[in-house]
Amino acid sequence: MRPFLLPAALLPALLLTACASTASQLPAQQEANRQVVLQFYEAGLNRKDADAALKYVGNRYVQHNPNAADGPEGFKQFIAFLRDKYPQSHSEILNSFVDGDRVILHVHAMREPGTRGNAIVDIFKLENGKIVEHWDVTQAIPEKTASGNPMF
Amino acid sequence: MRPFLLPAALLPALLLTACASTASQLPAQQEANRQVVLQFYEAGLNRKDADAALKYVGNRYVQHNPNAADGPEGFKQFIAFLRDKYPQSHSEILNSFVDGDRVILHVHAMREPGTRGNAIVDIFKLENGKIVEHWDVTQAIPEKTASGNPMF
Repeated sequence: MRPFLLPAALLPALLLTACASTASQLPAQQEANRQVVLQFYEAGLNRKDADAALKYVGNRYVQHNPNAADGPEGFKQFIAFLRDKYPQSHSEILNSFVDGDRVILHVHAMREPGTRGNAIVDIFKLENGKIVEHWDVTQAIPEKTASGNPMF
Repeated sequence: MRPFLLPAALLPALLLTACASTASQLPAQQEANRQVVLQFYEAGLNRKDADAALKYVGNRYVQHNPNAADGPEGFKQFIAFLRDKYPQSHSEILNSFVDGDRVILHVHAMREPGTRGNAIVDIFKLENGKIVEHWDVTQAIPEKTASGNPMF
């Protein structure tokens, strides 16, 4: 039987199409997820606008921070607490990472200007481009470190 | 001019080869990095065999944990401290993430069996498949959480 033949000149276009559809769709979604989390953090933790931040949250917000109440209402309460007690608090995102449906932030958070603040790692889970779950770990930054290296 | 023709049956093999060389090389290195960090953690933190763990470390080990001394020697001291004071300590890796040259671990660490332990996020930087830098954040797990959800 004679094999079905293709013009070789078509190959680059075929390869590009196939690779794009199998390999780079996921990284594009991951990058979109990263941007969602960065916008959520800036709106919520820094501008302290819980409603603006909650636009990036999906149909639930499962909270694993041990001090925060669950759900979007718990997040609103936390932002109201920051506005009230620490209006000048600021969170600087030093690094962000993406893997699968998770976005991870390495953060230096200061509740009052001029204080050493806390080192925080936040982990967010996203579904359909929206945040649905949050874990974090928080540690006070000490005056000195054993190595002399900073925590960041 | 008659075009150069290829048998269409060759296409799947051609596509696989091209996609693998352009897109999945980086993910393969990331997955290798993840395995390096998992082996390092198991050998060091759980088997408490610093020499075995240090086989996964490169030409430096820049330490950002505020309580640990710098470099491979600092790591050896920390593992010797664990062997001596907390021989039954165990670190359970609940999740691992990779992005670029970083591997991130979400860990439940118990220094003594039956205690609540600490939530830890470790961030490792790798160069040429070896660990060269480490950051972490540690938080004691409280008895109760505001949401009722666990920290993990």
